[in-house]
Amino acid sequence: MVNGIERPLDVLNNAKGKEVIVQLKNNKQMVGTLLAFDIHINVVLDNAKEMVDGESKRSMGLTFLRGDTIIFISPASMAA
Amino acid sequence: MVNGIERPLDVLNNAKGKEVIVQLKNNKQMVGTLLAFDIHINVVLDNAKEMVDGESKRSMGLTFLRGDTIIFISPASMAA
Amino acid sequence: MVNGIERPLDVLNNAKGKEVIVQLKNNKQMVGTLLAFDIHINVVLDNAKEMVDGESKRSMGLTFLRGDTIIFISPASMAA
Amino acid sequence: MVNGIERPLDVLNNAKGKEVIVQLKNNKQMVGTLLAFDIHINVVLDNAKEMVDGESKRSMGLTFLRGDTIIFISPASMAA
Amino acid sequence: MVNGIERPLDVLNNAKGKEVIVQLKNNKQMVGTLLAFDIHINVVLDNAKEMVDGESKRSMGLTFLRGDTIIFISPASMAA
Amino acid sequence: MVNGIERPLDVLNNAKGKEVIVQLKNNKQMVGTLLAFDIHINVVLDNAKEMVDGESKRSMGLTFLRGDTIIFISPASMAA
Amino acid sequence: MVNGIERPLDVLNNAKGKEVIVQLKNNKQMVGTLLAFDIHINVVLDNAKEMVDGESKRSMGLTFLRGDTIIFISPASMAA
Repeated sequence: MVNGIERPLDVLNNAKGKEVIVQLKNNKQMVGTLLAFDIHINVVLDNAKEMVDGESKRSMGLTFLRGDTIIFISPASMAA
Repeated sequence: MVNGIERPLDVLNNAKGKEVIVQLKNNKQMVGTLLAFDIHINVVLDNAKEMVDGESKRSMGLTFLRGDTIIFISPASMAA
Repeated sequence: MVNGIERPLDVLNNAKGKEVIVQLKNNKQMVGTLLAFDIHINVVLDNAKEMVDGESKRSMGLTFLRGDTIIFISPASMAA
Repeated sequence: MVNGIERPLDVLNNAKGKEVIVQLKNNKQMVGTLLAFDIHINVVLDNAKEMVDGESKRSMGLTFLRGDTIIFISPASMAA
Repeated sequence: MVNGIERPLDVLNNAKGKEVIVQLKNNKQMVGTLLAFDIHINVVLDNAKEMVDGESKRSMGLTFLRGDTIIFISPASMAA
Repeated sequence: MVNGIERPLDVLNNAKGKEVIVQLKNNKQMVGTLLAFDIHINVVLDNAKEMVDGESKRSMGLTFLRGDTIIFISPASMAA
Repeated sequence: MVNGIERPLDVLNNAKGKEVIVQLKNNKQMVGTLLAFDIHINVVLDNAKEMVDGESKRSMGLTFLRGDTIIFISPASMAA
């Protein structure tokens, strides 16, 4: 079911081009298409939307997120 | 009973493929199957569920957790 | 649509000379023209304006922003 | 009375296999048998119990604690 | 208008000997003449004044500011 | 009066074997005999007592304190 | 008036043996004679007094202050 996950960053690599949910430390989420990431977990989302409690608050378009503000990143299609 | 724990990361290595509880700094827990971790304690959980006070809040599926948001990780089967 | 984004910093490089929104950890935003950035995500904005909840609060002109206070940076023209 | 403590980590080394109290930054304590630690003060406790104000709240069993959430570690038998 | 800004620190270099506003994480500002800075964004201001909500609270004279407490630095003459 | 203090750690070296007050970021103090320290300002106290507002709250005995939770360390005999 | 300040640490070097005000992140100040500092801005004050809102609260004598708790350091004689 989940193959080839040897290191944590493999999950992010597999999620490139797909929609992800990024949970931020400020209790907001950013949802968008994962375009790029680096070892600091800085990430770039396309068509990003800022969500609060599951409600869309702002459409941000292309967005650079600084890694140290991130709690978790989850491919959106995996959420039940 | 607990053999072969020389270094802290040995516990995480032994827990691969098993269910773990991850306590986050934001007072939430993530429960899921530990797939991978690295020296920053970034971890990947499969079938992750976000819990608050022991109640399941969100099913996240496959999830990358950034290490600096983690307080502790415990194999779920060990909890009494 | 979004080509040539291999690494997160590519987004910032593409945004040089353009208007960006910088979300800060203190719940304020800075809007201005991106002049420069470095690997710490220290950035320089020209004609920077401090915003709170979308309202302009202060015109700061040329401003150096320290990277560790930044949550995200988004090219302003991408926002819907 | 306390011999052979040249460096701070000597205390943790001497406490291996013994019960310790770990005070966390979130005002909780973890009590358990110290199995392992590293230079980041990541520690592993066996038979860990989460305590709040001296009351046991949760039995966690084997637990990996991330170093940066720890205020102090004290061998339990030393407390008066 | 703003020439020769290749890297973020160029702005600070250009501002040497001029009045700057330094926004701190504790919601206060320091206004003074920028004398020196380093790569940690530690800065030295001369004739520094501590401001809260635009009101002068304390005259500090020569002051060393630790970089990790700084949100932004802006040449005062640029503010509208 | 205070001779031979060339570097900050010299003060801690001189205080070895003596009673010190350690002020923690959580508004508590630890008072005890300084046994060891390292460059991270991790310290070991013997006969440590946790104090709140000058009142003894807990006797901890031998205690390892993680450096990043410490505000200041002062030899107790120096306090007026 | 202020000569020879090339780098931020020059200010601290010039202030050795003189009274300084150290503003801490916990809203307190420490006033004392600067004896030593290092590149982490760990500092040692002699005859240190803890101040809150300009009122002396505690005489600490010789005190080691950890750099990461410091907002600013100002030679006391410079304050107006």
